[in-house]
Amino acid sequence: MKKKTKKVNAAILIIGNEILSGRTQDKNIRFISTWLNSNCGISVNEVRIIPDEEKTIVENVNFLSKKYNYVFTTGGIGPTHDDITAQSISKAFKVKYEYHKEAFSILEKYYGKKKFNDGRKKMAKMPRGARLIHNPSSAAPGFIVNNVLSLPGVPSILNSMIENCKRYLIRGSRVHSKTLNLFTVESNISKQLGLIKKKYKKFVDIGSYPFFRLGKIGVAIVMRSNSTAKLNNVNRDLLKLVKFKKIKILKI
Amino acid sequence: MKKKTKKVNAAILIIGNEILSGRTQDKNIRFISTWLNSNCGISVNEVRIIPDEEKTIVENVNFLSKKYNYVFTTGGIGPTHDDITAQSISKAFKVKYEYHKEAFSILEKYYGKKKFNDGRKKMAKMPRGARLIHNPSSAAPGFIVNNVLSLPGVPSILNSMIENCKRYLIRGSRVHSKTLNLFTVESNISKQLGLIKKKYKKFVDIGSYPFFRLGKIGVAIVMRSNSTAKLNNVNRDLLKLVKFKKIKILKI
Repeated sequence: MKKKTKKVNAAILIIGNEILSGRTQDKNIRFISTWLNSNCGISVNEVRIIPDEEKTIVENVNFLSKKYNYVFTTGGIGPTHDDITAQSISKAFKVKYEYHKEAFSILEKYYGKKKFNDGRKKMAKMPRGARLIHNPSSAAPGFIVNNVLSLPGVPSILNSMIENCKRYLIRGSRVHSKTLNLFTVESNISKQLGLIKKKYKKFVDIGSYPFFRLGKIGVAIVMRSNSTAKLNNVNRDLLKLVKFKKIKILKI
Repeated sequence: MKKKTKKVNAAILIIGNEILSGRTQDKNIRFISTWLNSNCGISVNEVRIIPDEEKTIVENVNFLSKKYNYVFTTGGIGPTHDDITAQSISKAFKVKYEYHKEAFSILEKYYGKKKFNDGRKKMAKMPRGARLIHNPSSAAPGFIVNNVLSLPGVPSILNSMIENCKRYLIRGSRVHSKTLNLFTVESNISKQLGLIKKKYKKFVDIGSYPFFRLGKIGVAIVMRSNSTAKLNNVNRDLLKLVKFKKIKILKI
Protein backbone atom coordinates (compact mmCIF):
# COMPACT_ATOMS: atom_id res chain seq x y z
CA MET A 1 0.00 0.00 0.00
CA LYS A 2 1.30 3.43 -0.90
CA LYS A 3 1.91 5.71 2.03
CA LYS A 4 0.06 8.99 1.64
CA THR A 5 2.06 12.10 2.43
CA LYS A 6 0.54 14.51 4.87
CA LYS A 7 1.51 18.14 4.72
CA VAL A 8 1.44 20.12 7.93
CA ASN A 9 2.67 23.71 7.92
CA ALA A 10 3.41 26.52 10.33
CA ALA A 11 4.25 30.21 10.52
CA ILE A 12 6.61 31.90 12.97
CA LEU A 13 5.72 35.31 14.38
CA ILE A 14 8.68 37.06 16.02
CA ILE A 15 7.45 39.82 18.33
CA GLY A 16 10.15 42.28 19.29
CA ASN A 17 11.43 45.77 18.55
CA GLU A 18 14.97 44.63 19.37
CA ILE A 19 15.06 42.33 16.33
CA LEU A 20 13.53 44.95 14.01
CA SER A 21 15.99 47.63 15.11
CA GLY A 22 18.94 45.34 14.45
CA ARG A 23 20.04 45.44 18.09
CA THR A 24 19.63 41.68 18.43
CA GLN A 25 20.41 38.94 15.92
CA ASP A 26 17.49 36.51 15.75
CA LYS A 27 18.40 32.89 16.42
CA ASN A 28 14.93 31.47 16.98
CA ILE A 29 13.72 31.24 13.38
CA ARG A 30 16.38 28.77 12.33
CA PHE A 31 16.07 26.74 15.52
CA ILE A 32 12.27 26.37 15.45
CA SER A 33 12.20 25.71 11.73
CA THR A 34 14.86 22.98 11.86
CA TRP A 35 13.26 21.38 14.93
CA LEU A 36 9.77 21.36 13.41
CA ASN A 37 10.98 19.83 10.21
CA SER A 38 13.15 17.09 11.61
CA ASN A 39 11.05 16.21 14.67
CA CYS A 40 7.49 16.76 13.51
CA GLY A 41 7.51 16.80 9.70
CA ILE A 42 6.12 20.33 9.83
CA SER A 43 7.42 22.91 7.38
CA VAL A 44 7.57 26.62 8.09
CA ASN A 45 5.98 28.50 5.19
CA GLU A 46 6.18 32.07 6.43
CA VAL A 47 7.93 34.17 9.05
CA ARG A 48 7.01 37.66 10.17
CA ILE A 49 8.87 39.98 12.51
CA ILE A 50 6.72 42.71 14.04
CA PRO A 51 6.97 45.35 16.79
CA ASP A 52 5.52 45.09 20.33
CA GLU A 53 2.22 46.74 19.37
CA GLU A 54 -1.10 45.24 20.37
CA LYS A 55 -2.96 46.10 17.17
CA THR A 56 -0.21 44.66 14.98
CA ILE A 57 0.04 41.46 17.04
CA VAL A 58 -3.74 40.95 16.95
CA GLU A 59 -3.90 41.41 13.17
CA ASN A 60 -1.01 39.06 12.51
CA VAL A 61 -2.21 36.34 14.90
CA ASN A 62 -5.63 36.43 13.28
CA PHE A 63 -4.26 36.27 9.77
CA LEU A 64 -1.58 33.63 10.29
CA SER A 65 -3.66 31.33 12.51
CA LYS A 66 -6.27 31.09 9.77
CA LYS A 67 -3.76 30.50 7.00
CA TYR A 68 -1.45 27.92 8.60
CA ASN A 69 -1.88 24.78 10.72
CA TYR A 70 0.21 26.25 13.54
CA VAL A 71 1.64 29.61 14.53
CA PHE A 72 4.66 29.90 16.83
CA THR A 73 5.15 33.28 18.48
CA THR A 74 8.38 34.24 20.22
CA GLY A 75 8.91 37.10 22.64
CA GLY A 76 6.75 39.34 24.79
CA ILE A 77 5.80 36.91 27.57
CA GLY A 78 8.05 38.29 30.32
CA PRO A 79 7.15 40.45 33.34
CA THR A 80 7.54 44.00 31.96
CA HIS A 81 5.30 46.63 30.41
CA ASP A 82 6.38 45.80 26.86
CA ASP A 83 5.49 42.12 27.23
CA ILE A 84 2.04 42.17 25.68
CA THR A 85 1.85 38.92 23.73
CA ALA A 86 -0.58 37.13 26.08
CA GLN A 87 -3.03 40.03 26.30
CA SER A 88 -2.85 40.57 22.52
CA ILE A 89 -3.57 36.91 21.76
CA SER A 90 -6.53 37.05 24.17
CA LYS A 91 -7.84 39.97 22.15
CA ALA A 92 -7.21 38.21 18.84
CA PHE A 93 -9.27 35.20 19.95
CA LYS A 94 -11.79 37.30 21.92
CA VAL A 95 -11.24 35.43 25.18
CA LYS A 96 -10.61 36.77 28.67
CA TYR A 97 -7.04 37.63 29.74
CA GLU A 98 -6.78 36.21 33.26
CA TYR A 99 -4.65 34.29 35.76
CA HIS A 100 -3.98 30.71 34.75
CA LYS A 101 -4.31 28.66 37.96
CA GLU A 102 -1.56 26.15 37.26
CA ALA A 103 0.84 28.78 35.90
CA PHE A 104 0.20 30.92 38.99
CA SER A 105 1.02 28.09 41.35
CA ILE A 106 4.14 27.06 39.37
CA LEU A 107 5.47 30.63 39.57
CA GLU A 108 4.51 31.12 43.22
CA LYS A 109 6.36 27.95 44.09
CA TYR A 110 9.39 28.93 42.03
CA TYR A 111 9.80 32.45 43.46
CA GLY A 112 8.42 31.85 46.95
CA LYS A 113 5.41 33.79 48.25
CA LYS A 114 7.48 36.78 49.42
CA LYS A 115 9.28 37.40 46.15
CA PHE A 116 6.23 36.76 43.99
CA ASN A 117 5.66 40.41 43.01
CA ASP A 118 3.26 41.95 40.47
CA GLY A 119 5.67 41.69 37.53
CA ARG A 120 6.14 38.01 38.16
CA LYS A 121 2.43 37.43 38.69
CA LYS A 122 1.85 38.99 35.27
CA MET A 123 3.59 35.97 33.72
CA ALA A 124 0.71 33.79 34.98
CA LYS A 125 -1.84 35.86 33.05
CA MET A 126 -2.92 34.16 29.85
CA PRO A 127 -5.82 33.86 27.44
CA ARG A 128 -8.66 31.85 29.02
CA GLY A 129 -8.45 28.19 28.03
CA ALA A 130 -4.70 28.25 27.43
CA ARG A 131 -2.76 25.04 28.00
CA LEU A 132 0.78 25.29 29.33
CA ILE A 133 4.11 24.69 27.63
CA HIS A 134 6.37 23.91 30.57
CA ASN A 135 9.65 25.74 31.04
CA PRO A 136 12.44 23.71 32.68
CA SER A 137 14.95 26.56 32.75
CA SER A 138 13.20 29.60 34.25
CA ALA A 139 9.75 28.32 35.30
CA ALA A 140 7.53 30.89 33.49
CA PRO A 141 5.50 28.71 31.12
CA GLY A 142 4.63 29.31 27.50
CA PHE A 143 1.12 28.48 26.34
CA ILE A 144 -1.03 27.29 23.48
CA VAL A 145 -4.45 28.68 22.55
CA ASN A 146 -6.20 27.19 19.54
CA ASN A 147 -3.35 26.65 17.06
CA VAL A 148 -1.06 29.38 18.39
CA LEU A 149 1.93 28.42 20.56
CA SER A 150 3.66 31.21 22.48
CA LEU A 151 7.29 30.89 23.52
CA PRO A 152 9.75 33.33 25.09
CA GLY A 153 12.29 35.31 23.05
CA VAL A 154 15.47 34.35 24.91
CA PRO A 155 16.94 31.56 22.74
CA SER A 156 18.37 29.40 25.55
CA ILE A 157 15.01 29.33 27.35
CA LEU A 158 13.06 28.74 24.15
CA ASN A 159 15.37 25.87 23.21
CA SER A 160 14.79 24.20 26.57
CA MET A 161 11.01 24.32 26.08
CA ILE A 162 10.62 23.21 22.50
CA GLU A 163 10.26 19.48 23.26
CA ASN A 164 7.24 20.34 25.42
CA CYS A 165 5.43 21.62 22.33
CA LYS A 166 5.42 18.18 20.74
CA ARG A 167 2.36 16.84 22.56
CA TYR A 168 0.22 19.59 21.03
CA LEU A 169 1.32 19.05 17.43
CA ILE A 170 0.00 16.78 14.71
CA ARG A 171 2.86 15.29 12.76
CA GLY A 172 3.29 15.65 9.03
CA SER A 173 5.29 13.48 6.70
CA ARG A 174 8.99 13.98 7.24
CA VAL A 175 10.67 16.10 4.59
CA HIS A 176 13.89 14.45 3.43
CA SER A 177 16.70 16.34 1.81
CA LYS A 178 19.80 15.69 -0.23
CA THR A 179 22.54 18.13 -1.15
CA LEU A 180 25.01 18.04 -4.03
CA ASN A 181 27.88 20.50 -3.66
CA LEU A 182 29.27 21.27 -7.09
CA PHE A 183 32.39 23.18 -8.08
CA THR A 184 30.74 25.20 -10.80
CA VAL A 185 28.80 28.44 -11.14
CA GLU A 186 25.02 28.62 -11.11
CA SER A 187 24.82 29.99 -14.64
CA ASN A 188 26.71 26.97 -16.06
CA ILE A 189 23.90 24.61 -15.13
CA SER A 190 20.88 26.90 -14.80
CA LYS A 191 19.25 25.81 -18.08
CA GLN A 192 19.37 22.05 -17.39
CA LEU A 193 18.52 22.57 -13.73
CA GLY A 194 15.40 24.44 -14.83
CA LEU A 195 14.33 21.41 -16.90
CA ILE A 196 14.92 18.99 -14.02
CA LYS A 197 13.00 21.27 -11.69
CA LYS A 198 10.09 21.34 -14.13
CA LYS A 199 10.10 17.54 -14.49
CA TYR A 200 9.80 16.95 -10.71
CA LYS A 201 7.85 20.12 -9.89
CA LYS A 202 5.06 18.39 -7.97
CA PHE A 203 7.26 16.21 -5.81
CA VAL A 204 10.64 17.75 -5.19
CA ASP A 205 11.64 21.26 -4.20
CA ILE A 206 15.04 22.07 -5.74
CA GLY A 207 17.09 25.09 -4.71
CA SER A 208 20.57 26.25 -5.68
CA TYR A 209 22.81 28.29 -3.41
CA PRO A 210 26.25 29.69 -4.24
CA PHE A 211 29.08 28.96 -1.81
CA PHE A 212 32.73 29.89 -1.43
CA ARG A 213 35.09 27.20 -0.22
CA LEU A 214 38.87 26.92 -0.14
CA GLY A 215 38.99 29.94 -2.42
CA LYS A 216 36.77 28.26 -4.99
CA ILE A 217 33.26 29.16 -6.07
CA GLY A 218 30.63 26.46 -5.96
CA VAL A 219 26.91 25.89 -5.91
CA ALA A 220 24.96 23.68 -3.52
CA ILE A 221 21.95 21.98 -5.08
CA VAL A 222 19.46 21.21 -2.32
CA MET A 223 16.62 18.78 -2.97
CA ARG A 224 13.72 18.44 -0.54
CA SER A 225 10.81 16.02 -0.73
CA ASN A 226 8.48 13.78 1.26
CA SER A 227 9.45 10.91 -1.05
CA THR A 228 12.94 9.44 -0.85
CA ALA A 229 12.31 7.62 -4.15
CA LYS A 230 11.66 10.88 -6.01
CA LEU A 231 14.65 12.41 -4.28
CA ASN A 232 16.83 9.61 -5.64
CA ASN A 233 15.45 10.16 -9.13
CA VAL A 234 16.37 13.83 -9.06
CA ASN A 235 19.79 12.97 -7.70
CA ARG A 236 20.33 10.50 -10.56
CA ASP A 237 19.36 13.11 -13.17
CA LEU A 238 21.68 15.63 -11.56
CA LEU A 239 24.61 13.21 -11.51
CA LYS A 240 24.13 12.63 -15.25
CA LEU A 241 24.32 16.39 -15.79
CA VAL A 242 27.41 16.64 -13.58
CA LYS A 243 29.14 13.89 -15.58
CA PHE A 244 28.19 15.47 -18.91
CA LYS A 245 29.49 18.89 -17.86
CA LYS A 246 32.61 17.38 -16.21
CA ILE A 247 31.87 19.14 -12.93
CA LYS A 248 33.76 18.23 -9.75
CA ILE A 249 31.76 17.32 -6.64
CA LEU A 250 32.78 18.53 -3.19
CA LYS A 251 32.58 15.61 -0.75
CA ILE A 252 31.86 16.70 2.82
CA MET B 1 13.47 77.10 15.78
CA LYS B 2 12.38 73.62 16.69
CA LYS B 3 13.52 70.92 14.32
CA LYS B 4 10.63 68.82 13.12
CA THR B 5 11.18 65.08 13.20
CA LYS B 6 10.52 63.20 10.00
CA LYS B 7 9.62 59.54 10.21
CA VAL B 8 10.60 57.33 7.30
CA ASN B 9 10.01 53.60 7.50
CA ALA B 10 10.75 50.42 5.59
CA ALA B 11 9.94 46.73 5.42
CA ILE B 12 12.33 43.89 4.56
CA LEU B 13 11.11 40.99 2.43
CA ILE B 14 13.43 37.98 2.58
CA ILE B 15 12.76 35.68 -0.38
CA GLY B 16 14.22 32.23 0.04
CA ASN B 17 13.25 28.66 0.90
CA GLU B 18 16.70 28.11 2.44
CA ILE B 19 15.96 30.58 5.25
CA LEU B 20 12.47 29.15 5.89
CA SER B 21 13.73 25.57 6.04
CA GLY B 22 16.40 26.51 8.57
CA ARG B 23 19.22 25.47 6.27
CA THR B 24 20.67 28.98 6.28
CA GLN B 25 20.92 31.49 9.12
CA ASP B 26 19.74 34.90 7.92
CA LYS B 27 22.25 37.70 8.39
CA ASN B 28 20.71 40.33 6.16
CA ILE B 29 17.87 41.53 8.40
CA ARG B 30 20.14 42.82 11.11
CA PHE B 31 22.61 44.32 8.64
CA ILE B 32 20.03 46.22 6.58
CA SER B 33 18.12 47.36 9.63
CA THR B 34 21.19 48.71 11.42
CA TRP B 35 22.47 50.38 8.27
CA LEU B 36 19.13 52.04 7.48
CA ASN B 37 18.78 53.38 10.97
CA SER B 38 22.26 54.76 11.46
CA ASN B 39 22.88 55.99 7.92
CA CYS B 40 19.48 57.12 6.73
CA GLY B 41 17.28 57.60 9.79
CA ILE B 42 14.92 54.96 8.42
CA SER B 43 13.38 52.44 10.79
CA VAL B 44 12.36 48.93 9.78
CA ASN B 45 8.79 48.29 10.95
CA GLU B 46 8.19 44.82 9.56
CA VAL B 47 10.07 41.86 8.16
CA ARG B 48 8.64 38.91 6.25
CA ILE B 49 10.35 35.74 5.11
CA ILE B 50 8.58 33.96 2.25
CA PRO B 51 9.25 31.10 -0.18
CA ASP B 52 10.38 31.45 -3.83
CA GLU B 53 6.82 31.44 -5.19
CA GLU B 54 5.67 34.02 -7.68
CA LYS B 55 2.15 34.45 -6.31
CA THR B 56 3.42 34.93 -2.75
CA ILE B 57 6.09 37.42 -3.82
CA VAL B 58 3.58 39.45 -5.85
CA GLU B 59 1.09 39.62 -2.95
CA ASN B 60 3.72 40.66 -0.43
CA VAL B 61 5.37 43.26 -2.67
CA ASN B 62 1.97 44.81 -3.35
CA PHE B 63 0.99 44.87 0.30
CA LEU B 64 4.27 46.08 1.79
CA SER B 65 5.04 48.70 -0.89
CA LYS B 66 1.70 50.37 -0.16
CA LYS B 67 2.12 50.24 3.62
CA TYR B 68 5.74 51.40 4.02
CA ASN B 69 7.95 54.12 2.49
CA TYR B 70 10.43 51.54 1.21
CA VAL B 71 10.64 47.78 0.76
CA PHE B 72 13.98 45.98 0.60
CA THR B 73 13.89 42.50 -0.93
CA THR B 74 16.79 40.07 -0.60
CA GLY B 75 17.38 36.94 -2.64
CA GLY B 76 16.17 35.52 -5.93
CA ILE B 77 18.08 37.73 -8.38
CA GLY B 78 20.69 35.17 -9.48
CA PRO B 79 20.91 33.18 -12.71
CA THR B 80 18.93 30.03 -11.89
CA HIS B 81 15.37 28.79 -12.30
CA ASP B 82 14.45 29.58 -8.69
CA ASP B 83 15.54 33.20 -9.00
CA ILE B 84 12.18 34.78 -9.75
CA THR B 85 12.26 38.05 -7.83
CA ALA B 86 12.63 40.34 -10.88
CA GLN B 87 9.83 38.70 -12.84
CA SER B 88 7.57 38.66 -9.77
CA ILE B 89 8.12 42.36 -9.08
CA SER B 90 7.36 43.11 -12.73
CA LYS B 91 4.07 41.30 -12.27
CA ALA B 92 3.33 43.08 -8.99
CA PHE B 93 3.74 46.50 -10.65
CA LYS B 94 2.23 45.35 -13.96
CA VAL B 95 5.26 46.36 -16.03
CA LYS B 96 7.17 44.43 -18.67
CA TYR B 97 9.95 42.04 -17.60
CA GLU B 98 12.74 42.74 -20.09
CA TYR B 99 16.47 43.24 -20.62
CA HIS B 100 17.84 46.34 -18.94
CA LYS B 101 20.29 47.88 -21.42
CA GLU B 102 22.87 49.12 -18.94
CA ALA B 103 22.70 45.94 -16.82
CA PHE B 104 23.14 43.85 -19.98
CA SER B 105 26.25 45.74 -21.01
CA ILE B 106 27.73 45.65 -17.49
CA LEU B 107 27.34 41.87 -17.37
CA GLU B 108 28.54 41.33 -20.93
CA LYS B 109 31.67 43.30 -20.19
CA TYR B 110 32.22 41.45 -16.88
CA TYR B 111 31.89 37.91 -18.29
CA GLY B 112 33.16 38.54 -21.82
CA LYS B 113 30.99 37.85 -24.86
CA LYS B 114 31.91 34.15 -25.05
CA LYS B 115 31.03 33.30 -21.47
CA PHE B 116 27.87 35.42 -21.38
CA ASN B 117 25.42 32.50 -21.42
CA ASP B 118 21.63 32.44 -20.96
CA GLY B 119 21.76 32.09 -17.16
CA ARG B 120 23.97 35.14 -16.87
CA LYS B 121 21.89 37.10 -19.36
CA LYS B 122 18.88 36.42 -17.16
CA MET B 123 20.45 38.62 -14.47
CA ALA B 124 20.03 41.60 -16.83
CA LYS B 125 16.27 41.07 -17.06
CA MET B 126 14.35 43.48 -14.83
CA PRO B 127 11.05 45.26 -14.52
CA ARG B 128 10.76 48.04 -17.15
CA GLY B 129 11.84 51.38 -15.72
CA ALA B 130 14.13 49.85 -13.09
CA ARG B 131 17.14 51.88 -11.99
CA LEU B 132 20.32 50.01 -11.07
CA ILE B 133 21.95 49.41 -7.71
CA HIS B 134 25.56 48.79 -8.67
CA ASN B 135 27.41 45.72 -7.42
CA PRO B 136 31.14 46.17 -6.86
CA SER B 137 31.79 42.55 -5.89
CA SER B 138 30.16 40.34 -8.51
CA ALA B 139 28.84 42.77 -11.16
CA ALA B 140 25.19 41.62 -11.34
CA PRO B 141 23.27 44.73 -10.28
CA GLY B 142 20.33 45.05 -7.94
CA PHE B 143 17.53 47.40 -8.91
CA ILE B 144 14.85 49.75 -7.67
CA VAL B 145 11.31 50.03 -9.06
CA ASN B 146 8.96 52.51 -7.44
CA ASN B 147 9.77 52.17 -3.73
CA VAL B 148 11.04 48.58 -3.87
CA LEU B 149 14.81 47.92 -3.78
CA SER B 150 15.99 44.43 -4.71
CA LEU B 151 19.30 43.09 -3.43
CA PRO B 152 20.93 39.65 -3.62
CA GLY B 153 20.74 37.10 -0.80
CA VAL B 154 24.46 36.40 -0.33
CA PRO B 155 25.41 38.61 2.65
CA SER B 156 28.91 39.58 1.50
CA ILE B 157 27.60 40.78 -1.86
CA LEU B 158 24.62 42.56 -0.32
CA ASN B 159 26.90 44.32 2.17
CA SER B 160 29.10 45.60 -0.65
CA MET B 161 26.09 47.10 -2.44
CA ILE B 162 24.22 48.77 0.38
CA GLU B 163 25.92 52.18 0.08
CA ASN B 164 24.69 52.36 -3.51
CA CYS B 165 21.09 52.37 -2.24
CA LYS B 166 21.58 55.69 -0.49
CA ARG B 167 21.01 57.91 -3.53
CA TYR B 168 17.49 56.52 -3.90
CA LEU B 169 16.42 57.06 -0.29
CA ILE B 170 14.86 60.02 1.46
CA ARG B 171 16.38 60.46 4.90
CA GLY B 172 14.39 60.47 8.09
CA SER B 173 15.37 61.91 11.42
CA ARG B 174 18.09 59.87 13.02
CA VAL B 175 16.90 57.63 15.84
CA HIS B 176 19.19 57.95 18.84
CA SER B 177 19.48 55.31 21.50
CA LYS B 178 20.77 54.90 25.03
CA THR B 179 21.16 51.69 26.99
CA LEU B 180 21.31 51.15 30.74
CA ASN B 181 22.53 47.70 31.75
CA LEU B 182 21.23 46.91 35.21
CA PHE B 183 22.09 44.05 37.53
CA THR B 184 18.51 43.29 38.51
CA VAL B 185 15.61 41.23 37.22
CA GLU B 186 12.86 42.62 35.02
CA SER B 187 10.16 41.97 37.57
CA ASN B 188 11.92 44.11 40.21
CA ILE B 189 11.44 47.27 38.18
CA SER B 190 8.53 46.42 35.89
CA LYS B 191 5.97 48.54 37.73
CA GLN B 192 8.01 51.78 37.78
CA LEU B 193 9.28 51.15 34.27
CA GLY B 194 5.68 50.92 33.12
CA LEU B 195 4.99 54.36 34.58
CA ILE B 196 8.07 55.89 32.93
CA LYS B 197 7.10 54.32 29.65
CA LYS B 198 3.61 55.82 29.93
CA LYS B 199 5.00 59.27 30.74
CA TYR B 200 7.18 59.38 27.60
CA LYS B 201 4.95 57.25 25.38
CA LYS B 202 4.78 59.68 22.47
CA PHE B 203 8.49 60.43 22.30
CA VAL B 204 10.61 57.54 23.50
CA ASP B 205 10.42 53.82 22.78
CA ILE B 206 11.59 51.90 25.86
CA GLY B 207 12.37 48.19 25.78
CA SER B 208 13.81 45.85 28.40
CA TYR B 209 15.84 42.78 27.56
CA PRO B 210 17.21 40.20 30.00
CA PHE B 211 20.92 39.34 29.77
CA PHE B 212 23.34 36.93 31.43
CA ARG B 213 26.82 38.22 32.16
CA LEU B 214 29.65 36.89 34.29
CA GLY B 215 27.19 34.44 35.79
CA LYS B 216 24.83 37.23 36.82
CA ILE B 217 21.36 38.02 35.57
CA GLY B 218 20.66 41.53 34.34
CA VAL B 219 18.30 43.55 32.25
CA ALA B 220 19.19 46.02 29.53
CA ILE B 221 16.89 49.02 29.29
CA VAL B 222 17.04 50.37 25.75
CA MET B 223 15.66 53.84 24.99
CA ARG B 224 15.17 55.00 21.41
CA SER B 225 13.99 58.41 20.25
CA ASN B 226 14.41 61.10 17.60
CA SER B 227 14.96 63.60 20.41
CA THR B 228 18.16 63.45 22.45
CA ALA B 229 16.59 65.82 25.01
CA LYS B 230 13.71 63.42 25.70
CA LEU B 231 16.19 60.56 25.80
CA ASN B 232 18.13 62.35 28.53
CA ASN B 233 14.91 62.93 30.49
CA VAL B 234 14.08 59.23 30.46
CA ASN B 235 17.63 58.40 31.43
CA ARG B 236 17.42 60.82 34.39
CA ASP B 237 14.15 59.23 35.59
CA LEU B 238 15.68 55.78 35.25
CA LEU B 239 18.78 56.72 37.23
CA LYS B 240 16.54 57.97 40.05
CA LEU B 241 14.80 54.60 40.08
CA VAL B 242 18.15 52.77 40.03
CA LYS B 243 19.36 54.81 43.01
CA PHE B 244 16.13 54.25 44.95
CA LYS B 245 16.22 50.48 44.36
CA LYS B 246 20.00 50.31 45.00
CA ILE B 247 20.63 48.55 41.69
CA LYS B 248 24.16 48.16 40.34
CA ILE B 249 24.88 49.37 36.82
CA LEU B 250 27.09 47.38 34.45
CA LYS B 251 29.54 49.77 32.78
CA ILE B 252 30.62 48.61 29.33
